[in-house]
Amino acid sequence: MKTLLTAFFVTSLIAVAADIRRDEPKKPLVLESQGSFFVGGEKKAVNAPTPNGGTVESSITVNQMYVQYQTPPGGDKHAPVVMVHGCCLSSKTWETTPDGRMGWNEYFVRKGRPVYLADQVSRARSGFDPTKINAVKAGTLPPSELPQVLAASHQVAWSVFRFGPKFGTPFSDGQFPIEAVDELYKQMIPDLNSLLPNPNPTWTNMAALAVKRHGAVLMGHSESGFFPEQAALIDPSGVKGIISIEMPCVTNFAAPQLATLAKIPTLVMFGDHLGDVTGGPANWLTSYQGCETFVHQVNNSGGDADDVSAEDGN
Amino acid sequence: MKTLLTAFFVTSLIAVAADIRRDEPKKPLVLESQGSFFVGGEKKAVNAPTPNGGTVESSITVNQMYVQYQTPPGGDKHAPVVMVHGCCLSSKTWETTPDGRMGWNEYFVRKGRPVYLADQVSRARSGFDPTKINAVKAGTLPPSELPQVLAASHQVAWSVFRFGPKFGTPFSDGQFPIEAVDELYKQMIPDLNSLLPNPNPTWTNMAALAVKRHGAVLMGHSESGFFPEQAALIDPSGVKGIISIEMPCVTNFAAPQLATLAKIPTLVMFGDHLGDVTGGPANWLTSYQGCETFVHQVNNSGGDADDVSAEDGN
Repeated sequence: MKTLLTAFFVTSLIAVAADIRRDEPKKPLVLESQGSFFVGGEKKAVNAPTPNGGTVESSITVNQMYVQYQTPPGGDKHAPVVMVHGCCLSSKTWETTPDGRMGWNEYFVRKGRPVYLADQVSRARSGFDPTKINAVKAGTLPPSELPQVLAASHQVAWSVFRFGPKFGTPFSDGQFPIEAVDELYKQMIPDLNSLLPNPNPTWTNMAALAVKRHGAVLMGHSESGFFPEQAALIDPSGVKGIISIEMPCVTNFAAPQLATLAKIPTLVMFGDHLGDVTGGPANWLTSYQGCETFVHQVNNSGGDADDVSAEDGN
Repeated sequence: MKTLLTAFFVTSLIAVAADIRRDEPKKPLVLESQGSFFVGGEKKAVNAPTPNGGTVESSITVNQMYVQYQTPPGGDKHAPVVMVHGCCLSSKTWETTPDGRMGWNEYFVRKGRPVYLADQVSRARSGFDPTKINAVKAGTLPPSELPQVLAASHQVAWSVFRFGPKFGTPFSDGQFPIEAVDELYKQMIPDLNSLLPNPNPTWTNMAALAVKRHGAVLMGHSESGFFPEQAALIDPSGVKGIISIEMPCVTNFAAPQLATLAKIPTLVMFGDHLGDVTGGPANWLTSYQGCETFVHQVNNSGGDADDVSAEDGN
């Protein structure tokens, strides 16, 4: 199973890379079904203002996760793939590329896989809990209680995505369509994850979605790269596979946790230029080395994990 | 053109109503193309914190509008429909219904229409400008400068959507699947429109999208119900039709503005029980009466506008 999974995804990646700037006519896309729904969510009591200046106890829903799905004909032959985006992004990140090419969502559907795109809890169509911001505005909480809103600047994005050694200077061998970088910057939206309780409800909701679908491959990227593992540690029963893309790995799991993860085929993926960008908030070479350690730990526990890095010529 | 438009949408509404709780097998959905992109967006200078406690001038992008589209085969025979959601919602509102039926987005695509779903600027996948929140947290702005974050409570949603005379008591003739109301509450996400400049960038971006598509029908609902008209007053050149659903109308436009709107076929739609819910933030009967006045004003300027209300048996 793992070998197949690895082969499929590496082949996909190569194909996606080969697709770059090729503008061939596409066949119509046929879908068995599509739609959207929410996973999780809890009722929370809030004091809402009334027209006469008082407040009235009301309820809002928080911690729900928005999911959009597409299933191709015959898609039930395969476990669906759940894609979760990174910091300061939404599931837009899996759709049409900044220069207008097909995104991974449609690419996987055209390869026969049902695809589920999730917006992280507290981001995009999942919404966020506004009660702290409103309490600070009302004067019942101090400004220090406001969330730390992460807004990835163009400069931070350039560094974190490793477009080049310094802002505005791309690597000569880069495959990102740098002429369309302004379109990527429009995907960068404020990140309110600092509002979230522990464990992160996105992890819980990913595990619940995998159960609801009677099994799913969970995929995360960057901020969410290790969310599939965290979801599996909450409830592994629906997690049929894990794809973790470019993130720091946890390397101090206890034996029972590693035993749980060892039962799930796992693919860890990194791109190139891991050590060639300095000064940004990420240290990708260190992250990759940590993930190599994690992969060894999983395999030493009887697991089936692999890491792939473009740096190694994979 | 207007008569056709009216006939199509009224037929659609009746068909959607008839669809309720009918669970017939659906044919596969065939798409000529799908994807997502952004309209608009401007670069804004911000001071980002550095690891040594200082700040560095950086840039973020604000006021962009996320748009997701699907085009059926032969869809270029029709002007696309751009759907914009209301307060405290995202474009989820046009997708799968709370009880799992097909949403208006797919319904229109299956009727041969290209559909564009926009998230309003400052909402969902369009992101928002976080600089005021961060400045208050940093102590450089007072808490009073925080945006008024609108969080529609369950109680407010019940009243605004007119599910019944009081919270928890539905109308006996309601068509909303009240057993699934908790799923609707999950769609209600914080509304940061108070952060927006004037004119609202969503209006500007809707007008620009209509131009980009060489003509489009603009549709808004509730908070955004009058956005199509506002977009047309910024640039009418791409606006081939307007559908305004349940909102207050502006009734004091000057003659040149009415002359602009009079050139665009316009349909204004309201549901039932307009006067049967009191105490909430909306007064729907007053809104409907104002819109009747607006429709008369447009028609007196030589226009082709119509209003439809389920209250009138339409």
